[in-house]
Amino acid sequence: MKKGKIFSGMRPTGRLHIGHLSVLENWVRLQEEYDCVFGVVDWHALTTSFEDVQSLQQRIREIALDWLSAGLDPEKCDIMVQSQVKEHAELHLLFSMMTPVSWLERCPTYKDQIQQFGLQGKEINMYGFLGYPLLMSADILLYLATHVPVGQDQIPHVEISREVARRFNFMYQKEVFPEPQVLLSEVPLLPGVDNRKMSKSYGNDISLTASPEEIKEKVRLMITDPGRVRKTDLGNPDVCVVHTYHKIYNDVEVEGIASDCRKADIGCVACKQRLAAKLEAVLGPIRERRDQLLAKPGIVDEVLAEGSRKARARASETMSLVREAMGVKGVLD
Amino acid sequence: MKKGKIFSGMRPTGRLHIGHLSVLENWVRLQEEYDCVFGVVDWHALTTSFEDVQSLQQRIREIALDWLSAGLDPEKCDIMVQSQVKEHAELHLLFSMMTPVSWLERCPTYKDQIQQFGLQGKEINMYGFLGYPLLMSADILLYLATHVPVGQDQIPHVEISREVARRFNFMYQKEVFPEPQVLLSEVPLLPGVDNRKMSKSYGNDISLTASPEEIKEKVRLMITDPGRVRKTDLGNPDVCVVHTYHKIYNDVEVEGIASDCRKADIGCVACKQRLAAKLEAVLGPIRERRDQLLAKPGIVDEVLAEGSRKARARASETMSLVREAMGVKGVLD
Repeated sequence: MKKGKIFSGMRPTGRLHIGHLSVLENWVRLQEEYDCVFGVVDWHALTTSFEDVQSLQQRIREIALDWLSAGLDPEKCDIMVQSQVKEHAELHLLFSMMTPVSWLERCPTYKDQIQQFGLQGKEINMYGFLGYPLLMSADILLYLATHVPVGQDQIPHVEISREVARRFNFMYQKEVFPEPQVLLSEVPLLPGVDNRKMSKSYGNDISLTASPEEIKEKVRLMITDPGRVRKTDLGNPDVCVVHTYHKIYNDVEVEGIASDCRKADIGCVACKQRLAAKLEAVLGPIRERRDQLLAKPGIVDEVLAEGSRKARARASETMSLVREAMGVKGVLD
Repeated sequence: MKKGKIFSGMRPTGRLHIGHLSVLENWVRLQEEYDCVFGVVDWHALTTSFEDVQSLQQRIREIALDWLSAGLDPEKCDIMVQSQVKEHAELHLLFSMMTPVSWLERCPTYKDQIQQFGLQGKEINMYGFLGYPLLMSADILLYLATHVPVGQDQIPHVEISREVARRFNFMYQKEVFPEPQVLLSEVPLLPGVDNRKMSKSYGNDISLTASPEEIKEKVRLMITDPGRVRKTDLGNPDVCVVHTYHKIYNDVEVEGIASDCRKADIGCVACKQRLAAKLEAVLGPIRERRDQLLAKPGIVDEVLAEGSRKARARASETMSLVREAMGVKGVLD
């Protein structure tokens, strides 16, 4: 007996890094307890990068491969591609008829992002960008999701989907959609090795598929307490990137190492070696699963095709109710 | 050899009246010369009346019956229902990613209509209402239309579809869409019998399917020169609704009748009888075709199903090019 239905997705923006891992680990747990649909939301990727589509199909396959490597199991959840289930577009259009522009404009991320992109000289003041919380609502409600696992910053988006569900059900006097609940997940913010925001474009990330050598090299580059020049200097773990990682990936040793660092009983090289070993313990199995998957060419496409087919079947049931309610169930439906 | 491709549509807002006839007569001519798709755009009906969906399916069938009665021939053109070809929603969504909100906001009908509906206490400031010129662009471009028959007031909408086509072709360096040309059609403005705007809701319309008695009754109600109280008073045709109709439906006699009216050589009763006869000559054959169609139950559904199927096939070809260009041709496409 499952606890409810979940939809969650990621934009195919490129290879995942260790900063994405906690979300994936959460998904891997959730697939055991909930009826889950996980979507590569490629249409969403277009809301901010509609010019940059050359590598989109490759990015879709890469992210799906990362998901599978991290432990998503197509026997336990649906792994689908948004654009392969056209009902997302239909439901988004139907919702658009009853959603005030003001609900979208007041979405906190909207003006923020327009400004942010504007600073990069990128104009994203597009109709589709304004509507992306509504596309997200369609993604969620299409599968009658009861729960949406999100971080703090995504709560307003789930709130819009709840308002849309409520409005629809009230307008057509039918309980078609549940009001999805937020499943708040703690997403520890992992800094890049240079202590800036982790991003592939900064080169400060640790890829989910980093080799043992790459892991060691990235850890070697991690910025430590700048006040500790010699090994004999007393260290301050609170300003050290390595310490931040120990807190997350080495909870057994972190206290001891920090205390040793403050007393200069452990040097940065040894501290980093211990972290690299821990990261390898986490990333090793992911890399291994990835290698197994790469040995079966076409497996990712098969998973996405099968997951998208299953998602279509679910979507088709929901849309039948929606079309009926809105009077647009027609001669070919 | 056809002169080009046409898409045009009407919202299923209820039974058509004689004011719609000139548009239909134009379509009947165009189906001979162009490759035409005519759509009952039911999703558009939702942009301004998403609460009022009870009778939508009935209204779709009624308007299609009116089209067929007026002479649209399913052997010569595709007669389809927008909601039955989901690609309209997909293309609309994809276009939304690259269409600035400002293109839609500056559309002259947008602020006008929001204000108009606002005066009626109806809030239509919805995301879908803002986007309806974009949905219209998707309708037109999905069929690679080269021409769009419109009245003066609809020119800005065709202009947006040209801009969207141009932007898409430029962005993806592929000539997927032609820039559709305006086919300006003279639409004489027929007043209602009370000289206000003709509208079923005012009860001042002449239905396309009016019986001879109804025609006579409506003509009888037409407002004539208020200065002409007795038959012996000299009349002024310029302020007479009957005269407006004679100008359109009785071009042979209109001059003579007007001149006789000015000299009081013809009375309003006789003048109205002659108009009623002319209207019967126009509406009679439409009513007859309608009766023939009504004798074949299910014929309208068959036409709409077949037309929508053909439209799907066309749409599917266009979307294949679009998905390819935008990088979203995926595992199931």
